[in-house]
Amino acid sequence: MTKHKVLIPIHPDKCDLADHLPEFKKFQQTFDVHIEVLTTSENFIHALKTKYNDIAAVWATSSLYKLGGLNPFIDYLPDTVKVVAFPWVGHNAFDGKKLKERGIILANIGDSPSKDVADIALLLTLATFRYSSYLEHALRTSDASISEARDSFGSDSFDPKTGEPIPPEDIKHKNLAKKLTIGGKTLDSPANKVAGLVGLGSIGKEIAKRLDAIGMSIKYTKRTPLKPEEEEALPFKAEFYSSFEELIPHVDLLVIAVPHSESTINLINKDSVKLLKKNVRIVNIGRGTAIDEDILLEALDDGTVNSVGLDVFQNEPKIDKRFLNRWDVVILPHIGSFTVDNFRDANIRVIENIEDVLLHDGPSLSPVN
Amino acid sequence: MTKHKVLIPIHPDKCDLADHLPEFKKFQQTFDVHIEVLTTSENFIHALKTKYNDIAAVWATSSLYKLGGLNPFIDYLPDTVKVVAFPWVGHNAFDGKKLKERGIILANIGDSPSKDVADIALLLTLATFRYSSYLEHALRTSDASISEARDSFGSDSFDPKTGEPIPPEDIKHKNLAKKLTIGGKTLDSPANKVAGLVGLGSIGKEIAKRLDAIGMSIKYTKRTPLKPEEEEALPFKAEFYSSFEELIPHVDLLVIAVPHSESTINLINKDSVKLLKKNVRIVNIGRGTAIDEDILLEALDDGTVNSVGLDVFQNEPKIDKRFLNRWDVVILPHIGSFTVDNFRDANIRVIENIEDVLLHDGPSLSPVN
Repeated sequence: MTKHKVLIPIHPDKCDLADHLPEFKKFQQTFDVHIEVLTTSENFIHALKTKYNDIAAVWATSSLYKLGGLNPFIDYLPDTVKVVAFPWVGHNAFDGKKLKERGIILANIGDSPSKDVADIALLLTLATFRYSSYLEHALRTSDASISEARDSFGSDSFDPKTGEPIPPEDIKHKNLAKKLTIGGKTLDSPANKVAGLVGLGSIGKEIAKRLDAIGMSIKYTKRTPLKPEEEEALPFKAEFYSSFEELIPHVDLLVIAVPHSESTINLINKDSVKLLKKNVRIVNIGRGTAIDEDILLEALDDGTVNSVGLDVFQNEPKIDKRFLNRWDVVILPHIGSFTVDNFRDANIRVIENIEDVLLHDGPSLSPVN
Repeated sequence: MTKHKVLIPIHPDKCDLADHLPEFKKFQQTFDVHIEVLTTSENFIHALKTKYNDIAAVWATSSLYKLGGLNPFIDYLPDTVKVVAFPWVGHNAFDGKKLKERGIILANIGDSPSKDVADIALLLTLATFRYSSYLEHALRTSDASISEARDSFGSDSFDPKTGEPIPPEDIKHKNLAKKLTIGGKTLDSPANKVAGLVGLGSIGKEIAKRLDAIGMSIKYTKRTPLKPEEEEALPFKAEFYSSFEELIPHVDLLVIAVPHSESTINLINKDSVKLLKKNVRIVNIGRGTAIDEDILLEALDDGTVNSVGLDVFQNEPKIDKRFLNRWDVVILPHIGSFTVDNFRDANIRVIENIEDVLLHDGPSLSPVN
């Protein structure tokens, strides 16, 4: 039996192919693997029509973005293609419907990165409650002194130019038992507080499990509510709310764990912000478009929102410059899924998906179309 | 019946008395509360011999440190004193044995801050696995660009002068699926890794619960092993090791959660460091004296230790200047217990302890001598 032909388009400038893995070596023995170095769209189309006119699968790497993603090439994929698999989660750049019409399965990596993304949500949660980013910065920029790093405790405001908290005038006489603030924002414990999750899919469940472990109670909203048996199977108690607007007045921490879609644009907007509980924290590890950042900054300034933790932003890869020196904002460069473990597992999942379709006539482990 | 007399010595420069709490107002109705402003040791001794020669309790605030702690005054406490209570945990500054000889109960706040301290251990754990402190710094100092903040991925070393990772020469061609490093240190997921706890008291148990929730397996060592029924009651699986040296070769994360004592000085030393698993993370929220920091820095440099998260240091309130610009070290200014919630609960516990002894003839809720 001849081996199935698998095409892996790569680009010399950007390629996340984990061809060092033992699993990849084995994959190369099982299949007839062709690694094609992309140059121009014309050349790639020509190659699809000629030397790749009998491929059974495409392993889509992020290199394809250099030529505008996969969509410009779907029409030129030969009829022999059964599966397109890629080593990440979001599939905005793939026209799954069009692929399905052509009988092609589109497969992502399913839940593989959920734990890593949830860890970042947890990290941002703890950082927004405890002001650790500011306190680490204060210690690093101090004269190597814990006492000096604590000088801003009890402060009421941030310097609008430098972003630094303005230390209380009467540093000597401050009483932290009465007033534990930085820039007027309180340092609170997440324990015994209420977390509200927007989205309770694979990532949301992992987040909720973590927030439960730090003593928070869990409320959530979700487009499709969990079935009673699904809710019962959760390893934590969770209370369902039928809408975002009904949920948010009740939470001390709002965690946005939804993918980008028409219905999740600007969840935080000029109307919904009025429903928030005073002193709420917000964490976003879903999609940056879920928050109107102008409104968020106003709410941080007027004290409605205590602090916010963001791994995603409205206008990536750029971020709003106003976030850069604010210490009531914790910012990370969209690294939710960035671990050695996830990058390995993602590539292994691509292999498993292609094998399932080509060797076992299966639907792949994580089809998305 | 006359009210019991309670003395609260305070100092105008440093006082953490939460006299704004409703519980404190009630306390003032129940007892004959005397708030004494400290000046000199002589004056305080004189006051103890005269106007306070019939007090039943001392509420020790941190103000006492201004006069060298409570110990210089124990001999002058009148025989009527039944309890000394203070709103924090560590009691190195109190001679509990001497107080006991005089029939005086010494009471701390027990487990009150355990969750908050455990949250900081969790935060430091996540930060050491994911390099979030560096990545936040990189984003804050970038031209508001996520791409730019990611430039150091794949880097092999840190600049010894600036502490910044030296970006890989061939930035364009790096492959994060093959090599996800910052300064030669890998960014790993804590999930499916082994955590080793030194100390499994109240704080250790709270930490272990959190590490279990992020998918780590738990091993521990402890002076007195848990009884089988205690181990069974834990909400996570935990494997006991009879010594520090036996534990550490097996762990990817070492968490030090022991108080300062003779037996916990320099646990990490020139001999034990050789037993560590390559690429281990270390988190210390116990006492800074548990780590020989010179040895730690060497182990960070030679790659034995991937990264370390410290809330406590060898020579507090100063910290080693070499930590200030290292990004494989996450540093916080000893804020484990710093939350509004804990400072409130700590003061309420002092009230409960004094009430238990004076009103109910009890041993206090959390005696330590």
